Amino acid sequence: MAKSNKSAGPEARLPKGFQDTPAEDIRATDRMLATIREVYERYGFEPLESPAIEYSDALGKFLPDQDRPNAGVFSFQDDDEQWMSLRYDLTAPLARYVAENFERLPKPFRRYAVGPVWRNEKPGPGRFRQFMQFDADTVGTDNIAADAEICMLAADALEALGIRRGDYLIRVNDRKVLDGALELIELGGEANAKKRLGVLRAIDKLDRLGEAAVRQLLGRGRTDDSGDFTPGAGLTAEQADSVLGLVTQAAQGMAHAGPLTGKNNATLAAGLAELAAIERLVRAAGFAEDRILIEPSVVRGLEYYTGPVFEAELSFEVKNEDGHSVRFGSVGGGGRYDGLVERFLGSKVPATGFSIGVSRLQTALAALGSTKRAAASGPVVVLVLDKAELPRYQNMAQCLRQAGVRAEMYLGTAGIKAQMKYADKRGAPCVVIQGGDERAKGEVQIKDLIEGAKAAASIKDAKAWREGRPAQFSVPEANLIAAVRDVLARHKD
Amino acid sequence: MAKSNKSAGPEARLPKGFQDTPAEDIRATDRMLATIREVYERYGFEPLESPAIEYSDALGKFLPDQDRPNAGVFSFQDDDEQWMSLRYDLTAPLARYVAENFERLPKPFRRYAVGPVWRNEKPGPGRFRQFMQFDADTVGTDNIAADAEICMLAADALEALGIRRGDYLIRVNDRKVLDGALELIELGGEANAKKRLGVLRAIDKLDRLGEAAVRQLLGRGRTDDSGDFTPGAGLTAEQADSVLGLVTQAAQGMAHAGPLTGKNNATLAAGLAELAAIERLVRAAGFAEDRILIEPSVVRGLEYYTGPVFEAELSFEVKNEDGHSVRFGSVGGGGRYDGLVERFLGSKVPATGFSIGVSRLQTALAALGSTKRAAASGPVVVLVLDKAELPRYQNMAQCLRQAGVRAEMYLGTAGIKAQMKYADKRGAPCVVIQGGDERAKGEVQIKDLIEGAKAAASIKDAKAWREGRPAQFSVPEANLIAAVRDVLARHKD
Repeated sequence: MAKSNKSAGPEARLPKGFQDTPAEDIRATDRMLATIREVYERYGFEPLESPAIEYSDALGKFLPDQDRPNAGVFSFQDDDEQWMSLRYDLTAPLARYVAENFERLPKPFRRYAVGPVWRNEKPGPGRFRQFMQFDADTVGTDNIAADAEICMLAADALEALGIRRGDYLIRVNDRKVLDGALELIELGGEANAKKRLGVLRAIDKLDRLGEAAVRQLLGRGRTDDSGDFTPGAGLTAEQADSVLGLVTQAAQGMAHAGPLTGKNNATLAAGLAELAAIERLVRAAGFAEDRILIEPSVVRGLEYYTGPVFEAELSFEVKNEDGHSVRFGSVGGGGRYDGLVERFLGSKVPATGFSIGVSRLQTALAALGSTKRAAASGPVVVLVLDKAELPRYQNMAQCLRQAGVRAEMYLGTAGIKAQMKYADKRGAPCVVIQGGDERAKGEVQIKDLIEGAKAAASIKDAKAWREGRPAQFSVPEANLIAAVRDVLARHKD
Repeated sequence: MAKSNKSAGPEARLPKGFQDTPAEDIRATDRMLATIREVYERYGFEPLESPAIEYSDALGKFLPDQDRPNAGVFSFQDDDEQWMSLRYDLTAPLARYVAENFERLPKPFRRYAVGPVWRNEKPGPGRFRQFMQFDADTVGTDNIAADAEICMLAADALEALGIRRGDYLIRVNDRKVLDGALELIELGGEANAKKRLGVLRAIDKLDRLGEAAVRQLLGRGRTDDSGDFTPGAGLTAEQADSVLGLVTQAAQGMAHAGPLTGKNNATLAAGLAELAAIERLVRAAGFAEDRILIEPSVVRGLEYYTGPVFEAELSFEVKNEDGHSVRFGSVGGGGRYDGLVERFLGSKVPATGFSIGVSRLQTALAALGSTKRAAASGPVVVLVLDKAELPRYQNMAQCLRQAGVRAEMYLGTAGIKAQMKYADKRGAPCVVIQGGDERAKGEVQIKDLIEGAKAAASIKDAKAWREGRPAQFSVPEANLIAAVRDVLARHKD
């Protein structure tokens, strides 16, 4: 809004990349989180909360060659000059917590956590510098059943949220399969790190772009429909064939649970064995391929993961910014990371987990129409016609509240018209009116705003409207609560 | 814990003044917040969430004579060199939000907010650098009914949490009463700012120390029982009489709703009129003096407030660190602040609100025994006796979950004894056991850990214990769910 001339104060605005969350979004998110929480609890996971601030070195965000943390995190120095940072995810604080409390924790330790994380990165459309994650992790076991359980947990959570079978898929791969494939075409070792990254990025697009396009991305590069050129990973045609062959063959091998033929190595074999074990476990627990699918083209993250990786994908279509129909895509993912706690303790503490992007999943539920919104969630508004009678109006509001009805007395100074506008803005299902006449008769008027809006839409004649006073009626003051309850019941769905 | 020799990594610890929150505390706090939320919603308040980070100048934390924010807040610079800070309360962000969205908000605007705030201050016992507040505010009206409503809201919230009438009191005063009294004894104006502070601090202790001690604190100072000397505000005996007389006389005036006699001035009169209005409104809504009490000795905050001030006090006694019985004291407070939004807009936007210290209230509920803890909230643990049968055990856990029972399969690698210890640590109500013999018979064993613990307490003979196998029984595998439900039902409170 325009600043008043009188003001010499600061400007009222948020830093870029941050946002306020309005009431409706908070309520929808709370409902969603409660549902996920219920599923996670049923799986035996325990809640844990850690503070927003950690030592930068504990988060692994201290730059090795410099005297300050990574620029991607929000950081500041404590009194004793030690660097602290806002957490950028919920996994690094979990690793710190487990290392700090290792002896007294039950092991394996299953925990879930939900809360904001902060990234000091360039914001963009839909990309904020504070956003919420919901994580579930199992720490302290290399049992592959823990990974299988995480996949089941994710599938059950999505269904509990009302996402139908067929509209989602938990896709599972193993980093060892990809690592093995890359070793086979002689892309192992430090020298090939950049090339490997290019290959992983290309494979990550197999599902979306198809085999031909990925073959181009593995080689020299690809020009897309809009004419944009993406440079390729620089593999020879033979190497590209080899990688693609392995990934698709592995996929088929998994799908049919048959033995893998062709080239192989120890890393690849270990990965395939882990995938076979996951498949056996989830199928035994009743999760078919329409819920959890082994699919060796899933890349999911480039460092960090050491074994199975998971991606929760929504397959239904939504319109993108250009009006094209596109698959909704990923709403979360995770995998096994055996190195994070080791940073602190020096000994291996294997772990696996899954993280949901809360606002992205919320967007998905909204697109599916799964977030039911109450027709009129606003409070009943008791209008103030006579300032001298404030205690009387206040008491009406209080009686309604005591009866469990959401209610408020109008607290402003405006006239009756503005009060009606206020009630509309608040989404009030009805207003309670008592002027001098009604008071003398011991009555109150109740105006049903929902019914009134419907009537207004059908009545064209302003005079008929005024005279008819649709949806407005008088009741004895003693019947206030019952009458308001009738109105609420009438509009309940 | 001791660091392994192998480790060259960072130490796993939190910065001082920060803490992790364990599962039981999270669950207790969630229940408490849900109850408060329900009351606030019923009063017509809407939830609002704002981010943790704001511009320092918008928070009012930019030091006027320096190029950086107040050291009491956590601050850092954005890419464009602008200073940002972590919010130190929920009121400053509300003022920024209201100023930013003023035109489109319904007015008055009632909002509640709950979340962490950060203070860059020296931590101490029970004093953390991140803690949670739960605020309710009404912005955009100078109607004193808004202040009355806040007091009613606070009283209703405390009762909804199970705090009995008589164990709490919402104490109400008005800053204008104190300001008027100070003007009367010629302590108005900038020159007396420090002296006024001393007087307010002394009056704040009236309730706790009594009149004689406060008279000393208003004058030369006071030596307490332990021999510590607190310097006084330096009033003359006449000034001290005057202030004390007014405060206690005002209190009695209010209590009897009679006219105030004696000295008076415009500020004092305005304050007393506001208190009388609040009293009239809350009494009309059915809140007696055992819930909301007008008491002109309440000081509550030294700057910031401009009219009525509120303090939510718990009057039941608890043992302090020295083992003495002391009144629990304040769990929240608030008041009217008409200046905060004005900083941005240049025009007055009156507001009033109330803030709960979440962890302090949680402590109070725990002291009252109001936080019920489920006897056994841990999951049913399916033990793993035969690694080759993992899918079978996993499936048992999954069947239990689908039946709504909290359950997990043991995911570690340890033997049966360690698994039983794990189940104990997890608070499992029972474990499910299937070895080769049971499998051959199509049975499972269920061991009731709660019953078992009771039996163990009464059986002294180790041999009898082993032979009796108390609380352990076999059922056909098909009856697993029904049998586990029986055990859970048996221990349900």
